[in-house]
Amino acid sequence: MILIIRPDRTDIEFDKLICELESMKMKTHVSVGENTTIVGLVGDTSLLDINEMKANPLVLDVKRVSEPYKRANRKFNSADTVIDINGVPIGGGYFTVIAGPCSVESQQQLNLIACNIKKSGASVLRGGAFKPRTSPYAFQGLEAEGIKILENAKSREDIPIITEIMDISDLRYFENVDIIQVGARNMQNFRLLKMLGRQKKPVLLKRGMSSTIEELLMSAEYIMSEGNNDVILCERGIRTFETSTRNTLDISAVPVLKKLTHLPVIVDPSHACGNACFVPALSKAAIAAGADGIMVEVHNNPAKALSDGAQSITLEEFDCLMNNIRKYAELENKKL
Amino acid sequence: MILIIRPDRTDIEFDKLICELESMKMKTHVSVGENTTIVGLVGDTSLLDINEMKANPLVLDVKRVSEPYKRANRKFNSADTVIDINGVPIGGGYFTVIAGPCSVESQQQLNLIACNIKKSGASVLRGGAFKPRTSPYAFQGLEAEGIKILENAKSREDIPIITEIMDISDLRYFENVDIIQVGARNMQNFRLLKMLGRQKKPVLLKRGMSSTIEELLMSAEYIMSEGNNDVILCERGIRTFETSTRNTLDISAVPVLKKLTHLPVIVDPSHACGNACFVPALSKAAIAAGADGIMVEVHNNPAKALSDGAQSITLEEFDCLMNNIRKYAELENKKL
Amino acid sequence: MILIIRPDRTDIEFDKLICELESMKMKTHVSVGENTTIVGLVGDTSLLDINEMKANPLVLDVKRVSEPYKRANRKFNSADTVIDINGVPIGGGYFTVIAGPCSVESQQQLNLIACNIKKSGASVLRGGAFKPRTSPYAFQGLEAEGIKILENAKSREDIPIITEIMDISDLRYFENVDIIQVGARNMQNFRLLKMLGRQKKPVLLKRGMSSTIEELLMSAEYIMSEGNNDVILCERGIRTFETSTRNTLDISAVPVLKKLTHLPVIVDPSHACGNACFVPALSKAAIAAGADGIMVEVHNNPAKALSDGAQSITLEEFDCLMNNIRKYAELENKKL
Amino acid sequence: MILIIRPDRTDIEFDKLICELESMKMKTHVSVGENTTIVGLVGDTSLLDINEMKANPLVLDVKRVSEPYKRANRKFNSADTVIDINGVPIGGGYFTVIAGPCSVESQQQLNLIACNIKKSGASVLRGGAFKPRTSPYAFQGLEAEGIKILENAKSREDIPIITEIMDISDLRYFENVDIIQVGARNMQNFRLLKMLGRQKKPVLLKRGMSSTIEELLMSAEYIMSEGNNDVILCERGIRTFETSTRNTLDISAVPVLKKLTHLPVIVDPSHACGNACFVPALSKAAIAAGADGIMVEVHNNPAKALSDGAQSITLEEFDCLMNNIRKYAELENKKL
Repeated sequence: MILIIRPDRTDIEFDKLICELESMKMKTHVSVGENTTIVGLVGDTSLLDINEMKANPLVLDVKRVSEPYKRANRKFNSADTVIDINGVPIGGGYFTVIAGPCSVESQQQLNLIACNIKKSGASVLRGGAFKPRTSPYAFQGLEAEGIKILENAKSREDIPIITEIMDISDLRYFENVDIIQVGARNMQNFRLLKMLGRQKKPVLLKRGMSSTIEELLMSAEYIMSEGNNDVILCERGIRTFETSTRNTLDISAVPVLKKLTHLPVIVDPSHACGNACFVPALSKAAIAAGADGIMVEVHNNPAKALSDGAQSITLEEFDCLMNNIRKYAELENKKL
Repeated sequence: MILIIRPDRTDIEFDKLICELESMKMKTHVSVGENTTIVGLVGDTSLLDINEMKANPLVLDVKRVSEPYKRANRKFNSADTVIDINGVPIGGGYFTVIAGPCSVESQQQLNLIACNIKKSGASVLRGGAFKPRTSPYAFQGLEAEGIKILENAKSREDIPIITEIMDISDLRYFENVDIIQVGARNMQNFRLLKMLGRQKKPVLLKRGMSSTIEELLMSAEYIMSEGNNDVILCERGIRTFETSTRNTLDISAVPVLKKLTHLPVIVDPSHACGNACFVPALSKAAIAAGADGIMVEVHNNPAKALSDGAQSITLEEFDCLMNNIRKYAELENKKL
Repeated sequence: MILIIRPDRTDIEFDKLICELESMKMKTHVSVGENTTIVGLVGDTSLLDINEMKANPLVLDVKRVSEPYKRANRKFNSADTVIDINGVPIGGGYFTVIAGPCSVESQQQLNLIACNIKKSGASVLRGGAFKPRTSPYAFQGLEAEGIKILENAKSREDIPIITEIMDISDLRYFENVDIIQVGARNMQNFRLLKMLGRQKKPVLLKRGMSSTIEELLMSAEYIMSEGNNDVILCERGIRTFETSTRNTLDISAVPVLKKLTHLPVIVDPSHACGNACFVPALSKAAIAAGADGIMVEVHNNPAKALSDGAQSITLEEFDCLMNNIRKYAELENKKL
Repeated sequence: MILIIRPDRTDIEFDKLICELESMKMKTHVSVGENTTIVGLVGDTSLLDINEMKANPLVLDVKRVSEPYKRANRKFNSADTVIDINGVPIGGGYFTVIAGPCSVESQQQLNLIACNIKKSGASVLRGGAFKPRTSPYAFQGLEAEGIKILENAKSREDIPIITEIMDISDLRYFENVDIIQVGARNMQNFRLLKMLGRQKKPVLLKRGMSSTIEELLMSAEYIMSEGNNDVILCERGIRTFETSTRNTLDISAVPVLKKLTHLPVIVDPSHACGNACFVPALSKAAIAAGADGIMVEVHNNPAKALSDGAQSITLEEFDCLMNNIRKYAELENKKL
């Protein structure tokens, strides 16, 4: 961390600041220029708060040199993390396809979808039971019953399941869920992250709509700092001025994250664009950019879906997409 | 709500769609043009999901005509809502100043600040007990103990208190808190909103960093739809490309919200800019733009604050700001 | 175009509005609901200005149904435009790679780069002669001399050249240039666009940093409306809150544009990310998403480049990238 | 400027880098830490390009310490610049109101508006002659004839005039124009800026829709570096995700700019919100935030305006606004 010091400070004030910094177990390197004095801090600066530093009246500005996350940082753990989901590996040399409906609607529907996506090549089944909806008047999901339906499909089709948690108090329903999903709106629900950090279950963490890549990694750090290292990161589109797609898929986040962290990175093309007709193009782009997997909304009858039908592809379209994915995975030397 | 229909639809398909829409208790008005057929829906469209409508393969696009919120809508309740906080009115012809430290640090600190801000003219004391921090390694607040400190200052100085809730499970600590604050990161924590909707306590709802004004009103609607109408909206800056301030204060949100809703609208200039030296200018701009109040971070010694010191003004600066606020309030015919 | 009418209008006012609209050669379809009256306008609404319509005191809101661009619209010209650049086709079933240094620095440098990128498989040589730089104190390009250097490299290596125009008054220098580039900062320099619309030379139009896809198409329309249909669109990253890359590549813009327009769409991964190490991943993503080509910055010695060295890949990295591009192009059935 | 050096560099490479930096007339201060080596550069770093520095393979990252603009920098010229417009001062202790129609439509219209706004208290007349329009099919302004109409109104009402230039080649028409306006879309038309820097006429420079405050100051620097110091900066709203207003007025830009530069700063509330009903609130916010003036669109009959009618206030509304402005100016100790 580098502190830029006001040119008009007195030597006494400055010496006091240096003492304070050293009392925080930081080594200091001072460079005195004509107009600017710079203090470099060496030590575990991930414990320092950049805003606290800025509050000091002697400090003009503060620049971070090293990343504020540790456990998620590739520098301290260069090998790719590979997470085992009941025999399905995520990360490393694998490309994992998670598919299923936005909302779980009925046992019959989910069985039909689960059976088909598995046949097409998906390896994890998704389905929303607790649904975060912008309007209090919209369908809020089947809740606990939805999870039971997922569990039945899981044992019937022998496929791991993932579903979203909205509140800590629902954790008891997630015992047989294989991956717990944290939605974009909860990416900075720090209480929830800490609690999930104390579970022994993989967590798929979606990037918030307006969260930076660094904030996403800090949220992963919340989970990991409590002991759970099985975190999967998911880019799902950010909010920008462009309105022709629901969100703007930040495809560069894939290679950036792969450089910064050892955690698996997957892409959700469905929420990113909000339009089924763009899902195949974005799925292929995800694998070409280096993602470890995709999570796609698939529905047996999108026009009748209880939520997000506009962005769901059909079972046939998914089968066709998987044929393309297989070719791209081969080019990228990824096992499906 | 207006549906734009594909030009290549068959009559049979179209008639089926109209039947479906009417079975949802919507009246339909059809206009057939040369290239485009338009269906206008009349009825309570706040219950319709725009994304479900778009999923219908006959539908090219959907445009909303009326707002999706009802209880928060000024159209259905034209008079300003005035909320009584233990004798302190918020909304209507009043301008309310909420002030205090970012984090509650000690009883002594809070007493000192409470006494001073009250003397200067603030009418509500703020202070964070449960702190949402980007880093798991940063100070997380005094939690339950912090609320006790707030309660003591409240009874000592006879001033209502406001503090932030981070999780439903903490609700028991908020019995003597006068206004429960929902932070920007929790604006779409729908479970929390619903639970607060069942309380008999005013809620201050902060706009999410990348939430639209309509989404803010939908989140207010979540609280109100459960029976609690005492919602105060707070603009605190949105995330944009500009980095010279921490966030970008959306000052236009004030007149826009005052037009769309009857709920009180206040501004948090401290989080908006993240820099104490801009707080006075933005506070004056807030009152000039029509806000019903401001929430300002004030600290006895910003350089030593445990959080957000850079954006806290001193007790002296706050006193000076209040002198200006009084003159501006007079110009705007607002009672302080 | 749909007009939403104020509920409190008188019949006389309303009839007057309808007369005015019909005098503009628009057919009107009126739907009177309980709370809302809607007027659908049928005719060539691309000539109407949405803001003028909104200014009418009877009009609450205006929604566009059809696109405001015509010549660039795929609806009116479904076949892909294929542009011939001295024998090099752009668009249709082709994938075109444009490569070269950010700035032309010397004849020797450009010859070296041109020879190498051609050998690796690029089909157009890029190089900046007139350089738009944020700082007046930065290197502004070799200007007219730079174009002469490009022309020499063109005839030596028999490869078409592209370079950027910054002002109409420089047009005389572009006689032997094969594609004239309009930079992101000039995307709405309407005078320049109109003048280029009167030339018989292909134009590569870069998307402005904060321009919507519709605005990009409207700028293409400016060129086409003057008679020049040879417009190549280029996505080069948009400005968002994310700072880990220089801009945010809007990869979805590729399939969205391919759906809306028949014009060729290429991607500039170098400016999008601003970091050479992410260029290969984004180049592959571009082709996977359906782009008709890429434009890549390549430099013989990036550390010594006079501009944008950080985002330039080396000659060796480019050669390696082309090997990957060939495999991806085959998968997408594109001729290189 | 601070360079963060790769930890894996050899001493020979590092010494070479230091030599190169010193050959650029920079003094270097090296701090060697355990994991990171930092080089501080002292000298005129405004001449250095941050991207060139980043391209060096030894350099991990670069942080600027001092601003890249000099002439516009308040550090080197602490007194407010006051610009004299034919006897009307802008900047310093003055608050200047510029008003008039979006487009000049006819002599009669402009005379009527000029006469009325002057009576109400405006001191400069605005009106568009050359109009940048998104659509090639929209009204493009009366061009040279429009400027003649402005000149006539100027001499009739004895009021200075301001109008926008779109291209260098039109400069000959601006001889009797008192302030030349550079529109948001041309903020980085560097050729135009340089040419205006060689004129002896004040320039009003609008901030680009997605330009940072630093980029705005760099564009002012382009004009000033050619010898013209009479630059007025104008905040007119930036592009964000929020759609309830046309743009998002960045009100914080006012105090930020006042701190960074000595140049006058004005606000255009009309383009910022795009809706006449919010213009008064934003005008008052501008003066409260410390602006040196506002530029407001006023029209005798907004519903019939040839452009931007939706955001134009009427002559009566303007008169009423001026009454408020006078009271606010008094509070802020500004002369009108």
